[in-house]
Amino acid sequence: MKKYQVVGIGNAMVDVLAKVEDDFLDDNGIEKGIMTLIDTARATELYGKMGPAREISGGSAANTIAGLAALGSRTAYVGKVKDDQLGAIFAHDLRAQGADYDTPLAPASHTAETGRCMVLVSPDHERSMNTYLGVTEFLSPDDIDESQMADAEWLYLEGYRFDGPDSHAAFAKAIAACKGAGGKISVTLSDPFCVNRHRDAFRTLIHDHIDLLFCNEHELKALYETDDLSIAFSLARKDVPMLACTVGANGAYAYVDGTDYHDPATASKVMDVTGAGDLFAAGYLHGMVNGRNPISCLRMGNLAAGEIISHIGARPEADLKALFGAHGLV
Amino acid sequence: MKKYQVVGIGNAMVDVLAKVEDDFLDDNGIEKGIMTLIDTARATELYGKMGPAREISGGSAANTIAGLAALGSRTAYVGKVKDDQLGAIFAHDLRAQGADYDTPLAPASHTAETGRCMVLVSPDHERSMNTYLGVTEFLSPDDIDESQMADAEWLYLEGYRFDGPDSHAAFAKAIAACKGAGGKISVTLSDPFCVNRHRDAFRTLIHDHIDLLFCNEHELKALYETDDLSIAFSLARKDVPMLACTVGANGAYAYVDGTDYHDPATASKVMDVTGAGDLFAAGYLHGMVNGRNPISCLRMGNLAAGEIISHIGARPEADLKALFGAHGLV
Repeated sequence: MKKYQVVGIGNAMVDVLAKVEDDFLDDNGIEKGIMTLIDTARATELYGKMGPAREISGGSAANTIAGLAALGSRTAYVGKVKDDQLGAIFAHDLRAQGADYDTPLAPASHTAETGRCMVLVSPDHERSMNTYLGVTEFLSPDDIDESQMADAEWLYLEGYRFDGPDSHAAFAKAIAACKGAGGKISVTLSDPFCVNRHRDAFRTLIHDHIDLLFCNEHELKALYETDDLSIAFSLARKDVPMLACTVGANGAYAYVDGTDYHDPATASKVMDVTGAGDLFAAGYLHGMVNGRNPISCLRMGNLAAGEIISHIGARPEADLKALFGAHGLV
Repeated sequence: MKKYQVVGIGNAMVDVLAKVEDDFLDDNGIEKGIMTLIDTARATELYGKMGPAREISGGSAANTIAGLAALGSRTAYVGKVKDDQLGAIFAHDLRAQGADYDTPLAPASHTAETGRCMVLVSPDHERSMNTYLGVTEFLSPDDIDESQMADAEWLYLEGYRFDGPDSHAAFAKAIAACKGAGGKISVTLSDPFCVNRHRDAFRTLIHDHIDLLFCNEHELKALYETDDLSIAFSLARKDVPMLACTVGANGAYAYVDGTDYHDPATASKVMDVTGAGDLFAAGYLHGMVNGRNPISCLRMGNLAAGEIISHIGARPEADLKALFGAHGLV
């Protein structure tokens, strides 16, 4: 048995969440529903304008790993924070959830700070993310512990990490070490604009290395440059043996070994959609690495996503194990 | 018209909130429902043991001022944070709510950090607070701007501030400047253990300077060293012309100019009682400085407290103005 069932690699950051009216998004040129990278000056400007907020650890793959840890899977996370107060908060929240986290800290002398994401939640519960990457941008191959990668049944790679200068090299090192020891690789497309920025790199990675692709319908359409989801599915089948794709209120689709599966979304109260995709991946992966069939995996993904959108923030609040148990899934 | 209706002086801090089981409190020697001062070593130990948390600006008087600002009263706050990430979060959240906040920052070279309070919320929704004061302990008379104090109709003094080394001198300077310009002074007892630590100082302050005393039943009993609330009320009448006292699920009592008033608590969902007293004071003060009768003031206090206990954290989430309007109180 390998030490880890899933090791995630992603951009480590703390979310700064606030409610806003739609006018705020319009007045500040913020596109609703997507993730926009911002620099320090823009971060300062936006923060100065936005209302009172709360801070909750975030980071897409970190949210997934936190969900997996909450469910009892054996997990670790790789992502860079600084030796500062927000970095300490991020590390605490992940370890306290039960995940291993040992990525070297960027020193206090680093000019950038721990990354943060200003998450603006509008009245329709959609979130618009403005990300200051800070030190997490600088994760490099030196931060990848090959023995840890070899000790993982699955890697889970966050698409947002394609934005860092050494990210491709770091991913390549991690993939080689994991695959070399018989592990498998999953990736999430993260965001349609991220796909547009790095389409060729995503296509090559997926074709050459990926065993399981996570995405939503918008990201998959962006990847294959089509408006037709069925065409995107067909093209994906040629690239990757397994896919799990969320389709908003319609739940999620998967194909595994040539067979299609669908699970409708469980109706749930929606407060803030931040982290829905991250926790879908957590539920799906938890099922998969614990030997459940694809329909159960989809069900777990939808249930975990339903929990996360029922409250503010992208880390689980309810007891996910108990939730799965109540649905006969434990 | 004075620039400010209420200026608050308190311990500035960020709350670190997490759910815990009762066993956690027992195992770690934490007394439920009260505020315990802790040092850096204990803070590190407790934080290492507690589960994932979220950070929301707190500080008792700061919560009251945030509530007043949210309601549209003209407010300012005085309390010390450091030039660090948590200090920036605290300052942002207060200013973004509409309060003025100009206390000089402790420099980055200060050995202590911005204060924080580990708020452990148990299954019965009670909160147990473990406070690392950090730099907020060192608020001194130099931090009190006499012209600002003179510009306040009311001061609102936080009892917890009696724990700082220069706190009494800072309070004295603020009181003299405010009263000298015709302003009035209110104080909150904050916590029964805080009252026990500083009973003589509280009694002297109240007798000599206070126009309006905020407290809950436990604090008032501690102040007058009696188990009988009616005796405590009788003793208070000799010390202070106005009192507003919360009595948990029974709502709140007030006496004003020799007349007694009572308003029962509005039934509300309870998630976390952190900040209930702070927001009661916000609602009561908002009514008072805007010329409402004592029953309306009590009603506003109870409604604002009801909002704050319906969610995690001690800063308002709902639109308090709209809430008051829905109850015919605007």
